[in-house]
Amino acid sequence: MSLGMPVVDLNADLGESFGSFKVGQDEEVIPLVTSANVACGFHGGDPRVMDRTVRACREAGVAVGAHPSFPDLVGFGRRAMDVTPFEAETDIVYQVAALAGFCRRNRIDLQHVKPHGAINNLAAHDTALAEAIAVGVASYDPGLILICQPETELARAAEQVGLRVAREGYVDRAYGPDGRLVSRRQEGAVYRDPERAVQQALRMVTESTVVAIDGTVIQLQVDTLCVHGDNPEAVNLLRLLRQELAAAGVQLQPLAEVLR
Amino acid sequence: MSLGMPVVDLNADLGESFGSFKVGQDEEVIPLVTSANVACGFHGGDPRVMDRTVRACREAGVAVGAHPSFPDLVGFGRRAMDVTPFEAETDIVYQVAALAGFCRRNRIDLQHVKPHGAINNLAAHDTALAEAIAVGVASYDPGLILICQPETELARAAEQVGLRVAREGYVDRAYGPDGRLVSRRQEGAVYRDPERAVQQALRMVTESTVVAIDGTVIQLQVDTLCVHGDNPEAVNLLRLLRQELAAAGVQLQPLAEVLR
Amino acid sequence: MSLGMPVVDLNADLGESFGSFKVGQDEEVIPLVTSANVACGFHGGDPRVMDRTVRACREAGVAVGAHPSFPDLVGFGRRAMDVTPFEAETDIVYQVAALAGFCRRNRIDLQHVKPHGAINNLAAHDTALAEAIAVGVASYDPGLILICQPETELARAAEQVGLRVAREGYVDRAYGPDGRLVSRRQEGAVYRDPERAVQQALRMVTESTVVAIDGTVIQLQVDTLCVHGDNPEAVNLLRLLRQELAAAGVQLQPLAEVLR
Amino acid sequence: MSLGMPVVDLNADLGESFGSFKVGQDEEVIPLVTSANVACGFHGGDPRVMDRTVRACREAGVAVGAHPSFPDLVGFGRRAMDVTPFEAETDIVYQVAALAGFCRRNRIDLQHVKPHGAINNLAAHDTALAEAIAVGVASYDPGLILICQPETELARAAEQVGLRVAREGYVDRAYGPDGRLVSRRQEGAVYRDPERAVQQALRMVTESTVVAIDGTVIQLQVDTLCVHGDNPEAVNLLRLLRQELAAAGVQLQPLAEVLR
Repeated sequence: MSLGMPVVDLNADLGESFGSFKVGQDEEVIPLVTSANVACGFHGGDPRVMDRTVRACREAGVAVGAHPSFPDLVGFGRRAMDVTPFEAETDIVYQVAALAGFCRRNRIDLQHVKPHGAINNLAAHDTALAEAIAVGVASYDPGLILICQPETELARAAEQVGLRVAREGYVDRAYGPDGRLVSRRQEGAVYRDPERAVQQALRMVTESTVVAIDGTVIQLQVDTLCVHGDNPEAVNLLRLLRQELAAAGVQLQPLAEVLR
Repeated sequence: MSLGMPVVDLNADLGESFGSFKVGQDEEVIPLVTSANVACGFHGGDPRVMDRTVRACREAGVAVGAHPSFPDLVGFGRRAMDVTPFEAETDIVYQVAALAGFCRRNRIDLQHVKPHGAINNLAAHDTALAEAIAVGVASYDPGLILICQPETELARAAEQVGLRVAREGYVDRAYGPDGRLVSRRQEGAVYRDPERAVQQALRMVTESTVVAIDGTVIQLQVDTLCVHGDNPEAVNLLRLLRQELAAAGVQLQPLAEVLR
Repeated sequence: MSLGMPVVDLNADLGESFGSFKVGQDEEVIPLVTSANVACGFHGGDPRVMDRTVRACREAGVAVGAHPSFPDLVGFGRRAMDVTPFEAETDIVYQVAALAGFCRRNRIDLQHVKPHGAINNLAAHDTALAEAIAVGVASYDPGLILICQPETELARAAEQVGLRVAREGYVDRAYGPDGRLVSRRQEGAVYRDPERAVQQALRMVTESTVVAIDGTVIQLQVDTLCVHGDNPEAVNLLRLLRQELAAAGVQLQPLAEVLR
Repeated sequence: MSLGMPVVDLNADLGESFGSFKVGQDEEVIPLVTSANVACGFHGGDPRVMDRTVRACREAGVAVGAHPSFPDLVGFGRRAMDVTPFEAETDIVYQVAALAGFCRRNRIDLQHVKPHGAINNLAAHDTALAEAIAVGVASYDPGLILICQPETELARAAEQVGLRVAREGYVDRAYGPDGRLVSRRQEGAVYRDPERAVQQALRMVTESTVVAIDGTVIQLQVDTLCVHGDNPEAVNLLRLLRQELAAAGVQLQPLAEVLR
């Protein structure tokens, strides 16, 4: 990280369309982020979408990561499944390697992995699952970065196997005083006001703190900000965020640069 | 290829089980072949099966190839599908890369690709499909070998994109005077007699000829013999074949050695 | 059909969303048609979508039909597959029965079946496939109506097994002088001008003729008009069509009434 | 139930093959049971297998039930999934109705429903899931029988919605003093000795008791005995069981007769 000048990565989930089923606004979002989490076919994404998304990222200078999921297309990977560690580990290898194939074909390095939806949520607290994911990623390529929320089992497991960890902050989600995301079901968990989201992002990046839902100021160092791009408002928030980060002298760089 | 001493590869389809559904006799077949065509999840195989099969091959000193298919699990990849070239190309990349991931994790090189079932049959005659497959493989790794029947569109396409081609002979199938396999629906297309299959194999390897169903002797140079292992009789044929090849002074080597 | 007053059904494909993947504008289209072809899970549709779509149809007074497909979600059922007649027959029974289950649960009769995409296109000319579909439908419920293009193998097969046939006309597609649809790949095959589509519909319903792409006037008796609802323009065309049909004194009724 | 003469049903899971993947020994098991739980495509079974299995049951005089599952083919429906009640309810309707379609086509009534694997295990204790299953079944056909373990949430939910409940006993599994099955992971949970399994079955049917793993004698009234048929030993146990039940004067009848 360059001294004095704060730097951060912006990551978004991309390439989640499947066959004739279109989701997201990838064309508008890709130029606005620095790292893309590309779906690998288990919750969204198909080989055509994967190829086109990786190519669009390379052309836009956006770094590519794999976004593996539980095998649950109809549930979009959002439903917890009681898989064994070996099932999780091998499902991760399969998906990461498949996406890496499209990177190789499009002459761009695979930069990172960010698990999707339910498997990511469970791996924050489930040690065995977290280890299975980390081991799966490292067994395929120990040079990959794993995007994790700070202080989770997944972050610990990634460090244990020697993966680089990118600490992720959420722009439009409220934090509890324990540094964890407040459940979406709780009132005020998701910020509707773009200004508020932008302020949280700025604070995370420039002060390494976040104001929790109860007013507590907590420490939170982040390497990457998770942004959404699946609706027109999200794209507007993303534009506003880039503008304000630039105004605050924050530099945007892909993860591999941020962690250098 | 060593001077004077004929050498050939034995390839078989392996790793086609899926979840709780077991097919084939992989444990008995793996030690008897030199190259394995490992299913990649579209007609059979799942990430656990892929991992275990690749590991078993490495431990047995058997070379590993990808065995990609049309996306048709219920039809076991045996039903023709009217896919576009781009669909075929990207389906191939996805599957080959996924299997390559399990090779990388198990520290063994991916040696070759052999398309499975209907996509392989169609690619013998369909130029656009053949090119899509060859381009897909080469775009992922131009160093891979493609197993093809001689004189097919697939073999031509593979050569055009610079892939090494392994010419495949069938041990237990009758050939027509045009050098093509006789349709399974025709009387006598499949040899029930193991002796006859072994004789055809020996002739292919030592004389580069095959006696067609009408008695014509045709030229057929082969680098690899396709054998089956999905029933007890097939395993017996495989044992007999190895014994007779050894007696005839034929050396067995993985494809990469045969083509060296 | 009531004497003097022409009557016709309007059918549209509905319920093709899948999980988080939304397609179509079902809420706007359902009130504008008289019969719905509801996807059954093989190319689109899932059990939630099926249930909601059937319920919305019942509430809007729209008759429900099954819209079975080849098993090809990623290809949206638009890719030809070389299935056996028994495979087609049983795939049809499975899908039609599953949709009938949601009808039964929502207390509405299943009115008809219209095959989707590639299986429908192939069944126009492939006698064995057409018979398999007709036999499948009749083996489940001989009282169902099958929507077919006139003069196709599917229409003949349906009549042979004793199903009622609803003859379908296309509003926005050009016909050849042989009464068949002009291939989409041909210039002028799809009408962009809503006025032209409406004129073709009126002519079909009130005069039982259509002007082919070469100017020939051909006979074409139709019981139902196929309309699209998957884009905002299609919804506008549908509104205009209803208005013009009403102005011309044409009554709209579900198929079961039209064929009475 | 006939006075004096005890009567019981024997149920087994059948039709779990999928495409080219064969499991079970259906041909040998069907003649030995009185009720078949037929897979519906979500964990096993495909439309061909469903049709053939239903037909074979009808020809053997065996009653047919649906055996719906979580949508998890690769996990054979054995992995818990965190689905919503509406997801469970509609997945049940879809599968039950699809199987009922093959019954209708083969002119045999659908007799019962028995949930498969993980969804069945969870529904024993999860009230919301149990209600969703019961409501799903009853919304399709309130005349169906639901096979449940006694004293489970599923049994209570089924009774609440007015379904007939068939109380199921396990022949080769140990019970705890609370009347619940001992976890498979515990030593002694599964009986290897066929004699012991047969003795447990006889006691259940003739005395309505079972000796728990700690020696406690508990009450357990059963209408149906669950037997396995997926291995040669299971078939032998099934034969022995029938012989001993006959010797003890126990009559075998399909569920619908047992509950009459």
